[in-house]
Amino acid sequence: MKLLRYGPAGQEQPGMLDRQGQVRSLSGVISDLSPLTLNDEALDRLRTLDPGGLPLAPADSRLGLPVAGTGKVICVGLNYRDHADETGAAYPPEPILFMKATSALQGPNDEVWIPRGSVKTDWEVELAVVIGRQAKYVEVGEALSYVAGYCVMNDLSEREFQIERGGQWDKGKCCDTFGPLGPYLVTRDEVADPQNLAMWLEVDGHRYQNGSTSNMIFGVAEVVSYVSQFMTLFPGDVISTGTPAGVGLGQRPPHYLRAGQTVRLGIEGLGEQCQRVVAEPQERT
Amino acid sequence: MKLLRYGPAGQEQPGMLDRQGQVRSLSGVISDLSPLTLNDEALDRLRTLDPGGLPLAPADSRLGLPVAGTGKVICVGLNYRDHADETGAAYPPEPILFMKATSALQGPNDEVWIPRGSVKTDWEVELAVVIGRQAKYVEVGEALSYVAGYCVMNDLSEREFQIERGGQWDKGKCCDTFGPLGPYLVTRDEVADPQNLAMWLEVDGHRYQNGSTSNMIFGVAEVVSYVSQFMTLFPGDVISTGTPAGVGLGQRPPHYLRAGQTVRLGIEGLGEQCQRVVAEPQERT
Repeated sequence: MKLLRYGPAGQEQPGMLDRQGQVRSLSGVISDLSPLTLNDEALDRLRTLDPGGLPLAPADSRLGLPVAGTGKVICVGLNYRDHADETGAAYPPEPILFMKATSALQGPNDEVWIPRGSVKTDWEVELAVVIGRQAKYVEVGEALSYVAGYCVMNDLSEREFQIERGGQWDKGKCCDTFGPLGPYLVTRDEVADPQNLAMWLEVDGHRYQNGSTSNMIFGVAEVVSYVSQFMTLFPGDVISTGTPAGVGLGQRPPHYLRAGQTVRLGIEGLGEQCQRVVAEPQERT
Repeated sequence: MKLLRYGPAGQEQPGMLDRQGQVRSLSGVISDLSPLTLNDEALDRLRTLDPGGLPLAPADSRLGLPVAGTGKVICVGLNYRDHADETGAAYPPEPILFMKATSALQGPNDEVWIPRGSVKTDWEVELAVVIGRQAKYVEVGEALSYVAGYCVMNDLSEREFQIERGGQWDKGKCCDTFGPLGPYLVTRDEVADPQNLAMWLEVDGHRYQNGSTSNMIFGVAEVVSYVSQFMTLFPGDVISTGTPAGVGLGQRPPHYLRAGQTVRLGIEGLGEQCQRVVAEPQERT
């Protein structure tokens, strides 16, 4: 299933894609897509529905976050061989973890804001997993059974804030609008092999990232298991598993997003995102 | 006012302290202490109540988190002169920020778990602020008006996970039980000067930390303003403002918490916490 939420920001309704790619409403079935609806039993109940029998959503509805109520977003740094190579970093001996504030999450096609004073806002296409049931100290071999499904994430990153302003990366990862997620949550049964998905990102039509999840240093199952050694993962939590080569920081010379540009990105089988880049609105205080 | 939540974990009810220090129930007044009840108007309504007219909570009720629904926890690193000195670090030129997972938050007197394999679980008494209204790009001079109130936080930290396992600190800050908060939220009108509060922490009766918020490098108002330059702060968000000297890492030689110990900590006017330290339960998977 491809599950999603559509409608104005803050008023999203649950939905799913039908076989023709049309958005169908789940409002008559569940109140929302949330931590309560991500376990296998709840997803199995949705699987019994005939999407064609559900009401069509209004055409051109905005897409919101595919899941409401995410409690935390854990990200993995330097997790692709080609990205570590482009940044000149050694392959980490174990996953590097950092956090993205949940307040940075937004719909897949919402505007991305260049923060005030930012000159190094960068892109990162990533495979994100959404946790389906509570996980602590899970084995690698069992880890994928704790995953409800997969999404595209753009792990936007302000490199000066991240690297040059104290050394802890969160400062450059948590800015408002820095976490477009979606367009939809693809349940794990529809992703035969999460380690063999093509992924790409373009800025104004120029392809900067052209990678594959096969290039991860630590695979999805290893990452889920690893994170669960440190903290309990709850349904709705998101883990973003790192980015392949081709970020702005990796260009020679580096270059970054500017207001007026358009970012498109996607992962095989998980759909696409498209974001217009704008200067952060001044009235927002 | 001293606002709190009491009752079994997951079933807390809102309450407040009366003048005699007894817990009075707010269940008949508000559904919970949450982001919706932290703005000045909502707090002013609570101020009109006569605490003596509210029902007494059951004696010896467990205290939970003083606020439900916290969206993010931002922490400041190396923000006390004496703590920077003890770790041998230079004073940072601007605040160092990192995140603590909201899943690490718990009541002020709940057990603290030593994670499996941990040998460097450490303590940190901190002044935490709870945001009362949405804040972005706020000026230092206005920043405290965005604060609903103040709490004690124990920013527990696994130093090996934090420092020796990839360099990003979050891994050692997000473990389950690593965020006791409370006992209560003291509204900002009752804290005349947040930069002049004595603070202390003892392990098994030995006083390791004995500091003052006067020793902060970046004061509360500067920190709130600073964080708001990077991300929107929402009601219920918590900022923990750093710890003074005397952590386990700063001892010569360093030493850390062991199962069976008891940690007590407090801040002038904000009450005390007491945590029993135990090995993480094995059945929790």
